[in-house]
Amino acid sequence: MKLETRLQQELATLAERGLTRRHRRLDSPCGPRAVVEGREMLAFASNDYLGLAAHPEITQALADGALTWGAGSGAAHLVSGHLAPHEILAQRLAAFTGFARALTFSTGYLANLAVTPSLAPGRDDAIFADKLNHASLIDAAQLSRARQHRYPHNDMAALERLLAASDARTKVIVTDAVFSMDGDLAPLAELFELAERFDAWLVVDDAHGFGVLGPHGQGSLAHCGIPAHPRIVLMGTLGKAAGVGGAFVAASELVIDYLAHKARSYIFTTAAPPAMAVALLKSLELIAAGDARRAHLAALIRQLQAGLAGLPWTLLPSQTAIQPLIVGDNEAALALAHALWAQGLWVAAIRPPTVPAGTARLRISLSAAHSEADVARLVAALQALA
Amino acid sequence: MKLETRLQQELATLAERGLTRRHRRLDSPCGPRAVVEGREMLAFASNDYLGLAAHPEITQALADGALTWGAGSGAAHLVSGHLAPHEILAQRLAAFTGFARALTFSTGYLANLAVTPSLAPGRDDAIFADKLNHASLIDAAQLSRARQHRYPHNDMAALERLLAASDARTKVIVTDAVFSMDGDLAPLAELFELAERFDAWLVVDDAHGFGVLGPHGQGSLAHCGIPAHPRIVLMGTLGKAAGVGGAFVAASELVIDYLAHKARSYIFTTAAPPAMAVALLKSLELIAAGDARRAHLAALIRQLQAGLAGLPWTLLPSQTAIQPLIVGDNEAALALAHALWAQGLWVAAIRPPTVPAGTARLRISLSAAHSEADVARLVAALQALA
Repeated sequence: MKLETRLQQELATLAERGLTRRHRRLDSPCGPRAVVEGREMLAFASNDYLGLAAHPEITQALADGALTWGAGSGAAHLVSGHLAPHEILAQRLAAFTGFARALTFSTGYLANLAVTPSLAPGRDDAIFADKLNHASLIDAAQLSRARQHRYPHNDMAALERLLAASDARTKVIVTDAVFSMDGDLAPLAELFELAERFDAWLVVDDAHGFGVLGPHGQGSLAHCGIPAHPRIVLMGTLGKAAGVGGAFVAASELVIDYLAHKARSYIFTTAAPPAMAVALLKSLELIAAGDARRAHLAALIRQLQAGLAGLPWTLLPSQTAIQPLIVGDNEAALALAHALWAQGLWVAAIRPPTVPAGTARLRISLSAAHSEADVARLVAALQALA
Repeated sequence: MKLETRLQQELATLAERGLTRRHRRLDSPCGPRAVVEGREMLAFASNDYLGLAAHPEITQALADGALTWGAGSGAAHLVSGHLAPHEILAQRLAAFTGFARALTFSTGYLANLAVTPSLAPGRDDAIFADKLNHASLIDAAQLSRARQHRYPHNDMAALERLLAASDARTKVIVTDAVFSMDGDLAPLAELFELAERFDAWLVVDDAHGFGVLGPHGQGSLAHCGIPAHPRIVLMGTLGKAAGVGGAFVAASELVIDYLAHKARSYIFTTAAPPAMAVALLKSLELIAAGDARRAHLAALIRQLQAGLAGLPWTLLPSQTAIQPLIVGDNEAALALAHALWAQGLWVAAIRPPTVPAGTARLRISLSAAHSEADVARLVAALQALA
């Protein structure tokens, strides 16, 4: 069947380049000590930044939520799938982030698809997006008919020129708050200033900052001292630091009301299981009371940075749990990951096209569930391999 | 702020047309007897077709899964978020539907976004889509750069003409198996024959047929006697008849391998909580052993059809749990839904643009959890209102 030929050829090309991917099956819950296909590994590969994914109070809340509220929601939020735990969770998320209202989603991907195409639907609108934005933000822009401008990573001068040259009806600036493969922060204060000056919406994807940065883990905006504002639309995920799954959009009353009426990825999808909302209410409590976890994570970051200084590979400057060690060459990055794997250490090697050519890296992902001994073991292994 | 003006205006327009939507909060689990903002209603408004959303064996499996596997998966499937329950579930779904392999997703929306843009990515490809396809299939087509052809609902002659006239590199036919607002079936045998004749992929969204139709609830393809075939890509949802949440894509080894390498909505999203997979394994057992549930549902459908015959409104011909009662006028449909609501009966009124102008309707959604007395109560209320 000739239909299959293109697929076979593309997979063969990936194989030639060593880019074949496979599922590694975990035989244990998510956590630093993961059993991977029968073998116990020390993992630096998840986004469970606060170590909550297997926290007993959260798993108990999920279990209790299942027994109290059933397994499925049965319908979309606006039909009959909006249960009390969903509503309470949305209210708590809004209160926690300082915005007027919030909507919850089953994934961050869907949450991002809800925002940009709704705020900038038409050909006379314009989207201004950082070149390193997450795939879901790029796809969201694709679903809009708006003109798309992509500016060099965190380049505020370039963004300013693009905004100044635009005569779009509605302008939307879209950025990751913490970039997923670099771990660095967007200059949110400058972005907000530009949004004010050019009367643009500012859409912030805080997938990797929510729960980790800012007072009480309120996220990157709070970390940068930017209070909630009607011009800002915040997306946060609930399957990373929050340890469960799903996502939310928090914004003004008007924006949330508008999204509930217009956003196709909100309207045309089944609401998440209500038990997840019950578990997330417990997560939010633990995040808010999680200063000790965040302090421990910060100490681990400093420990890693000190331990890897002077090695032939460069750790990108990052104050978040994402610590990318730039190796450069694709094969070298893969070889390094394999050498660590052989010692029972699991760190993901990230290569082009996920990152720019010549910047293949190990994405070391730290968690408050790691111990100092865990980080010391990784540091010692990398020092020995250097 | 002038940014907000367009949003305010559009919401005002919706309000003028009586199209303002609001969340109705359920204070109970999903089920026929739903407590809606404090008031007990008899609900015909969910997609819980087999009555499994609050089934004690499934909620117990969800609870057990939480205590055994934690709350969150912590990462995307291809990073470190693929846990043993996810893998077993994917294998069982493939075996159950007869396909070689399957991938699981957090929602059907994301599953649909994975398929069409991967099979028909380029400008020299073409997508042939039924005009009544679900919003997520339309958005999936939008994410592809392929040429889009939409054929009149279930019009095989029109589809044949479009296929014959196309010189696209790759042709992809995309259809709902059971249409969500009409409840009718796509002519899957004819669609498959056209796919064979014109060397096209056939993508089938069985959101509303999986678990309900076919031997053992295997779905619409099995119901139509079409065995799994390398040319067919099947999407099924797990938050409707299966009662939990999420979705899957089942297809040939090659297609699934290709999607795992290329589909952005699979690669760039956190895997669902592993406890959901544990719950779904129990769901699959109950679906497979669910002939009594399906027979009861079929009896309720016949009871409803007999009871509503001769009323001034027409029940669309549907052998599925979706029984649309066509009222025609928007206000009349809304008034009928309100009158039922006043009697403690919850049925959704569906109006344009969700359905074509002049076909406003009540979407009566039956479930195996309904009793004959429940259906009799709805029938009596409608007869009295006629």
